[in-house]
Amino acid sequence: MKKLFTIIAFTAQSLYAQQHPVTFANKSDFKYVETQINQSEVLNSSFRSIKNQIDSLLNKDIDVPVPKDPAGAYTHEQHKSNYTLMYNAGMLYQITGNSKYALFVKSIFLKYSQLNPTLKNHPQATSAFPGRLFWQALNDANWLVYAGMAFDCIHDYLTPTERVAIADGAFKPIVNYFIKDKKNWFNLIHNHAVWACAGVGIVGIATDNEDYLTAALYGTEKDGKAGFLAQLNGLFSPDGFYHEGPYYTRYALLPFYLFANAIQNVKPDLGIFKYRNSILKKALDVALNQTNLTGEFFSYNDALKDKTYHSNELVVAIDLAWQAYGFDSSYLIIAKAQNKVILNKGGVDISKKIKSLPGNLIYPYHSAEYTDGANGDFGGLSVMRNGKGANLSSLIFKYTSHGLSHGHYDKLNIQFYDKGNEILQDYGAVRYINIEHKWGGRYLPETNSYAQQTIAHNTITVDEKSHYNGKEDVSEMNHPNRVFGSVSSSNLKVESAIDDKAYDNVKLFRTVYLFNLPQSDRKFVLDVFKTYSDSTHQYDLPFNYQGTLMKTNFKYISNTNALSTLGTKNGYQHLWKEAYANRVNPFTQFTFLNNKTFYTISTLADDSLDIFFTRVGANDPNFNLRREPSYILRAYGKNKTFFNAIEVHGNFNPTTELNVGSVSAVTSIQKLQDNDEYSAFEILIDNKKLLLIQCNKDFQQKSEHVFNFGSHQLKWTGPYYLSYNQQQIQ
Amino acid sequence: MKKLFTIIAFTAQSLYAQQHPVTFANKSDFKYVETQINQSEVLNSSFRSIKNQIDSLLNKDIDVPVPKDPAGAYTHEQHKSNYTLMYNAGMLYQITGNSKYALFVKSIFLKYSQLNPTLKNHPQATSAFPGRLFWQALNDANWLVYAGMAFDCIHDYLTPTERVAIADGAFKPIVNYFIKDKKNWFNLIHNHAVWACAGVGIVGIATDNEDYLTAALYGTEKDGKAGFLAQLNGLFSPDGFYHEGPYYTRYALLPFYLFANAIQNVKPDLGIFKYRNSILKKALDVALNQTNLTGEFFSYNDALKDKTYHSNELVVAIDLAWQAYGFDSSYLIIAKAQNKVILNKGGVDISKKIKSLPGNLIYPYHSAEYTDGANGDFGGLSVMRNGKGANLSSLIFKYTSHGLSHGHYDKLNIQFYDKGNEILQDYGAVRYINIEHKWGGRYLPETNSYAQQTIAHNTITVDEKSHYNGKEDVSEMNHPNRVFGSVSSSNLKVESAIDDKAYDNVKLFRTVYLFNLPQSDRKFVLDVFKTYSDSTHQYDLPFNYQGTLMKTNFKYISNTNALSTLGTKNGYQHLWKEAYANRVNPFTQFTFLNNKTFYTISTLADDSLDIFFTRVGANDPNFNLRREPSYILRAYGKNKTFFNAIEVHGNFNPTTELNVGSVSAVTSIQKLQDNDEYSAFEILIDNKKLLLIQCNKDFQQKSEHVFNFGSHQLKWTGPYYLSYNQQQIQ
Repeated sequence: MKKLFTIIAFTAQSLYAQQHPVTFANKSDFKYVETQINQSEVLNSSFRSIKNQIDSLLNKDIDVPVPKDPAGAYTHEQHKSNYTLMYNAGMLYQITGNSKYALFVKSIFLKYSQLNPTLKNHPQATSAFPGRLFWQALNDANWLVYAGMAFDCIHDYLTPTERVAIADGAFKPIVNYFIKDKKNWFNLIHNHAVWACAGVGIVGIATDNEDYLTAALYGTEKDGKAGFLAQLNGLFSPDGFYHEGPYYTRYALLPFYLFANAIQNVKPDLGIFKYRNSILKKALDVALNQTNLTGEFFSYNDALKDKTYHSNELVVAIDLAWQAYGFDSSYLIIAKAQNKVILNKGGVDISKKIKSLPGNLIYPYHSAEYTDGANGDFGGLSVMRNGKGANLSSLIFKYTSHGLSHGHYDKLNIQFYDKGNEILQDYGAVRYINIEHKWGGRYLPETNSYAQQTIAHNTITVDEKSHYNGKEDVSEMNHPNRVFGSVSSSNLKVESAIDDKAYDNVKLFRTVYLFNLPQSDRKFVLDVFKTYSDSTHQYDLPFNYQGTLMKTNFKYISNTNALSTLGTKNGYQHLWKEAYANRVNPFTQFTFLNNKTFYTISTLADDSLDIFFTRVGANDPNFNLRREPSYILRAYGKNKTFFNAIEVHGNFNPTTELNVGSVSAVTSIQKLQDNDEYSAFEILIDNKKLLLIQCNKDFQQKSEHVFNFGSHQLKWTGPYYLSYNQQQIQ
Repeated sequence: MKKLFTIIAFTAQSLYAQQHPVTFANKSDFKYVETQINQSEVLNSSFRSIKNQIDSLLNKDIDVPVPKDPAGAYTHEQHKSNYTLMYNAGMLYQITGNSKYALFVKSIFLKYSQLNPTLKNHPQATSAFPGRLFWQALNDANWLVYAGMAFDCIHDYLTPTERVAIADGAFKPIVNYFIKDKKNWFNLIHNHAVWACAGVGIVGIATDNEDYLTAALYGTEKDGKAGFLAQLNGLFSPDGFYHEGPYYTRYALLPFYLFANAIQNVKPDLGIFKYRNSILKKALDVALNQTNLTGEFFSYNDALKDKTYHSNELVVAIDLAWQAYGFDSSYLIIAKAQNKVILNKGGVDISKKIKSLPGNLIYPYHSAEYTDGANGDFGGLSVMRNGKGANLSSLIFKYTSHGLSHGHYDKLNIQFYDKGNEILQDYGAVRYINIEHKWGGRYLPETNSYAQQTIAHNTITVDEKSHYNGKEDVSEMNHPNRVFGSVSSSNLKVESAIDDKAYDNVKLFRTVYLFNLPQSDRKFVLDVFKTYSDSTHQYDLPFNYQGTLMKTNFKYISNTNALSTLGTKNGYQHLWKEAYANRVNPFTQFTFLNNKTFYTISTLADDSLDIFFTRVGANDPNFNLRREPSYILRAYGKNKTFFNAIEVHGNFNPTTELNVGSVSAVTSIQKLQDNDEYSAFEILIDNKKLLLIQCNKDFQQKSEHVFNFGSHQLKWTGPYYLSYNQQQIQ
């Protein structure tokens, strides 16, 4: 790192000789866009939608109000709208050459030049990092990014006096607030600080202010421990896995790409897009592979489920990545779905390439084992895929570290998607972004009291306490360890990880297997979740299923006339106990229907277990939580094994009313052995035996194992053996 | 009716000279289809999907199992599949001329000829009308319809001996069971009996059995009091409104059209498609206008919400209607969306016409006032529309009679759709059709205990009892009366109806207004719901909203740690009381979000009122009910007025995160007068006055009214006056 910094510092040149515009695109790029406007429908409509918007406002007086409101309400939305208008009108000026657009931008800027020097902390500011124009500094950083590019576009239109007036009036108060008053925040390795650096850096380039740019690249202390390059080093694993998860990758990719693009334009010698083995390309690719069939980002950590790769951040990232890294057919598939491009060379090229592409292509989703942590040694996340086209199933196994302030207490959590639907969900965050009515669009208290808690996840909660007792600073220091696994076979994906830090004196060991039953259209997830402890505990393993209960093979008691909560704290206070079953026969089945497909969870607990059907919604006085169900398995003891077979089966067509395969094919589960050395299970499916033997001690790929059952001996190599009807699945 | 019957009987001719096939299409029609197969993509793919299905099964032994299972399970699904296979293969034989298809059909028929004579009542039969092949006779009727057409297609391929074997073995046991053992059922005026008549009639034509056809047309007593013509007379109002509602129209249209088509082919003199002023065309048109933007049928009465005009029944009806009635551009829009045609002349013509049509056209939805009852004098239903294209809002006001066994206790109910979403819902039925796990796909007990009850609807329940005390026979004899209204203006739709039979000693009087606020994108429904009684009652008016609570202008108490039910019977036992507010300030607002749009209900009760936030799901031991919310206004007294303004506002875009208009523009409601003569309200919206004066006594269109407020006098003509900012809306 240190060496690298030296080289970079050496190549840095003065900005003063700079031509403008340069941050987003230069004059000839914009000219090129202009010549190509009618060459493709997508480019043309992207251009038109901006032009129509601005043209309809050109003769109006644009309000630059004194900041007052929270997110979702008037002054917030107006300032947000203003920076987009300025940016769009700035580009229009460059593309069309019509000075009315430049005048429009200038007149707004002059108002900000009056307003910004008068601002103190926003009246709705509630965080440690309040903004000036907005309730949080993050939004002020957004403003800088777009306003900076807008200024750059009209730089040459402005008189030198006007430039100084805007630089000193509109920009300086916010930049100084960031790099002086809030320098601790500005120097963080966190998505907010990425926006802050991008904003300050882009304004630096636009206003020819080398100091700003240096602070943005290397931190306020100019030592490279903070700033954009440190963020590129610290926020991604070597694979490109972003520490805060896909929802925030989406958000961070925008300033990463916009600022990198600006840096590339003024300091090409820095080779920013090649930095860290092209970490920005990896970051984009990992983000895209962490979406579901219709583009929704996996919802683990604080995530809102309606965010997809159609969002503006990904349009910008795809088109800039195309420009920076060249042809990538997977980007075309995304761009086709986005049906929108940005007004630069990358956007033009892509818009032409996707013209002849058919619609509804599916991104080349693939299985992957991502490491977490800047050095790739802080746990990780495996994405396991099965099935082609729209028949895709995705099993996500999470053994990452915490993921900063938006992480959850969810060690060894799984999430399962099938045919575009979320089947075993991660609740995501409790937030109605930008909706004034819902606490100004902020994260709601139930994010912490429910969504981040362990019980909200498909993993084990011990003694009704969340992992690390819900302490972020402790969680941030630790992570599970992957012990074995492979996603390279098309037949079988396996991943296994151990966590012995989430609880004192309890070790959690989970292994999941995803495969198609040979000669069958049934898919299975086998889930072996073992606990080890010297003392007796209560272990709760929820399946937060999405769907409607169809059938159980056991009797349960419904709380039909009154409901109470499952517990009193750590998320349990938010769960209504709709029904329960005590000491259930060890072979337990539960079938639910989600969107025309049936799913059955067949369970063998190592002795009798309790089961709860719960629903989210208790202690929710403001109706912030979705009323969603969970199926919770509870066992008491020291060393316990939860063995579950999750089966995907059947198809119900409500149009034709034809219904096939609605009944589970699993008719029994038997434990053959379960000790320190092996866990072995025999599952009867369609009257044939599925055999799983898993090693609990020796996880070496090359170790040879012998397993005796009865007079029969089985030999294999590696940490597990799976067969159906005596044929090995591997 | 009597006279008509004579004429019809006179024109009836013997079937014995009949050429085959004739029921679905004749030889030259099928030949025409063959020549056109490659002329359009839709026709070709419709043909291919049938051909691929049959070709994949040609060499397989098709199982004709002994009936055993309920709906959704093996034997049920197999017999259902078999009749489709026979029908499809029969058509393929005619179209391709390849006798392998005829042989395929014959071999299945011969198995049925063995099986059917041995059958008694189905072992899963639980209704009064059990089937033989299926659990209910209705499904046996389905079988007759398709098997009849299949037989007709291979009629000439069979030897006379084979024909007799099939007619006597496969058909006769079921037909005789219908027209002899179950003649009371066969002679009903009800959708089941429509299927039964169509089945017996089509088999009659296919097997040259005049007796069957006569029974099908005129009932088993051959007196015209039952049978197909009586059904055409009795099940529709003169407008074509089907007594059981749109969900069952969809279902009944299939046998209506298939049998009418067959009748037209053998007895063209009957002019069946022109019968009763082309009642079958009206029926189809009324059904189509009772769908929402994406084709879902309005969900009142026992309905499943996933049924759309894409369903097979509507493909058949559209294509046969095209053949019978000629060009209708609205049918092309539906056919384009269906993307499928049937293999007859109508299907061929339509497939060519829609080739050049753009996708995503919207059916020409329009406002309408439909009457109910064979003579149009049994109440009715108004459909009020506002807005163009995807911005369509639909308000449904229901003052029909009961609607046979699938009707609900829902006098004066409203339902509201906006932009394709159901905003104020009718729950529909509680049923998972054809899903074995859910009581064999039958109607579940909660249909009666909850969905049919008054409290499940957006209308008033008095003293926690359903309308007519939940007695179907009483409800069937009565209906509300429309008192005034108009849907002819594009600005304002108004409908008003009174019911004084649903409760003893209580009169219910509801008037709804749908309009756009002038010079605004805000839509409003004003809802004036008055009760009259000599004695004190509890009046509950629910708004079964779909969405998430955003905001209220009043404080409520949440039942955060324990839930109890709202009541103990008549549907109340299924409602959890999530929160409540007592004696709320008369100007009360509640805002919710549904799919990016905000909706606010602003209420003025005539004195203080109680409010409940409830959720469906109590006393639901089998998890059959959806967990959906309701907002219930409760008032106590004799004569009460519920005045509500339902406002459609704002737009939240989760992709751009821009949010506009999320706050209601209504800031107060004042009652100016509310007595026997007038109800007058002043609503402050954006600081301007919306004034509504409604007449409560004189509903004449031509009556002149004078209303004094203060020194000011207002004059108008007709039963209501509405103005905004002193400009009349009309």
